Amino acid sequence: MKIHIVYAHPHTASLNAALRDEAVRTLEGSGHAVTVSDLYAMKWKAVADYDDFGPTEEERFMFAAGEAWEKGEIAADVKEEQAKLLAADLVVLQFPLWWYTVPAILKGWIDRVFTNGFGYGTSRDWPRFGDGVLKGRRAMVVVTTGAAESHLSDRGVNGSIDDLLFPLQHGVLFYTGMEVLPPVVVTGAAVMDEAGFAGATELVRIRMAAVAETAPIAYRRQADDYDDAKRLKPGLEPAGTTGFALHIA
Amino acid sequence: MKIHIVYAHPHTASLNAALRDEAVRTLEGSGHAVTVSDLYAMKWKAVADYDDFGPTEEERFMFAAGEAWEKGEIAADVKEEQAKLLAADLVVLQFPLWWYTVPAILKGWIDRVFTNGFGYGTSRDWPRFGDGVLKGRRAMVVVTTGAAESHLSDRGVNGSIDDLLFPLQHGVLFYTGMEVLPPVVVTGAAVMDEAGFAGATELVRIRMAAVAETAPIAYRRQADDYDDAKRLKPGLEPAGTTGFALHIA
Repeated sequence: MKIHIVYAHPHTASLNAALRDEAVRTLEGSGHAVTVSDLYAMKWKAVADYDDFGPTEEERFMFAAGEAWEKGEIAADVKEEQAKLLAADLVVLQFPLWWYTVPAILKGWIDRVFTNGFGYGTSRDWPRFGDGVLKGRRAMVVVTTGAAESHLSDRGVNGSIDDLLFPLQHGVLFYTGMEVLPPVVVTGAAVMDEAGFAGATELVRIRMAAVAETAPIAYRRQADDYDDAKRLKPGLEPAGTTGFALHIA
Repeated sequence: MKIHIVYAHPHTASLNAALRDEAVRTLEGSGHAVTVSDLYAMKWKAVADYDDFGPTEEERFMFAAGEAWEKGEIAADVKEEQAKLLAADLVVLQFPLWWYTVPAILKGWIDRVFTNGFGYGTSRDWPRFGDGVLKGRRAMVVVTTGAAESHLSDRGVNGSIDDLLFPLQHGVLFYTGMEVLPPVVVTGAAVMDEAGFAGATELVRIRMAAVAETAPIAYRRQADDYDDAKRLKPGLEPAGTTGFALHIA
């Protein structure tokens, strides 16, 4: 497979960097071809603004983005990232959880790369949630958290890690058509002893060795399981669930 | 009251700009003092990196941030925003929902302003979720969405807007001690007719006129309702709920 890793951490000698290197070693050892977008090293422009577009008739931001996309007048760095995604069989997003979501530099990668016309569309019939520009590809999140596992568990005060990752995994990766593998979650990352580091490294190695066979999260496809108002059809939710868990078969 | 609005939209003539102006007019008309951080106009630096800190002994990012905070050697723009928050009685975050969360420029405001030592701490006893540096203040989100209301409803394919806003409202605003008022949500914002615009403006006017009396969301305080593993004590969740809704009384 071709695997593209989008990586966001400011410290070049961080736990995240070590886990990324372990992932690359494991994947290449399995015969995969790996590329990495190291957003801090690239000094990725985080803010989506009009400088990303050539001249447009449209003034409204989202529609100006769509017009620029249709004309092919989108920033060169955005086009390069789009090409990397289209060339990949598996897309990995790796980052530390900051304020319960991705760091700003990675949010800016999402905002700018998944622009109107490429990542999403405004029409009613736009293919989304199980269909989309990246259909046929797989995706996986690798995330480190300062919080301990229990704080991110089903009753944890932070909310569960599955719910915290839902807007990213379902709302970005599945939205654009990718099958999303269960995330690799490394908790307690702020202060980690040798055994913790060895365990995290082993987890990454095992998960990366299995990317081709791992079953994806069973998010429900919009085209199959939602009514015209884009609401889940009655009775499809797992018994006794509310919230984001409704949308997993 | 003193009210500080943190505003993020790239288009100076957008629906968001009109709603922000309506909010300022209404609040000032009620006798409140209003300040605004217009992040795009300020060219706010979105990416949290080592340039935000003076020289540090610590290399690890989070701990370097904490060391810089203790020495008072944090970037000047960050200190200015922290001072605005400390001076406010109510903090309003206004933004368009991009990929189910805040635009990168606003995420970068969160990442940089709520730095280690100010917004959060790594110690077990750090006061959080109902306590924290901004305790005694109120907060409110004003958000516009391209999606229609049903898509963001309890069974909507996007996930409910309350769940989508939880990591921000609970994980940032309540984490730092603020009481969070129910959000102002303007759906269908991509294509809005005159009647829709009038309704959105009226909604903002009504909510802003009532900010001093509006009851906050009843998030449970970590200090009261969670065990030593930071898990919600048994039986406190509303009957029949799972997911983020567990944490609301």
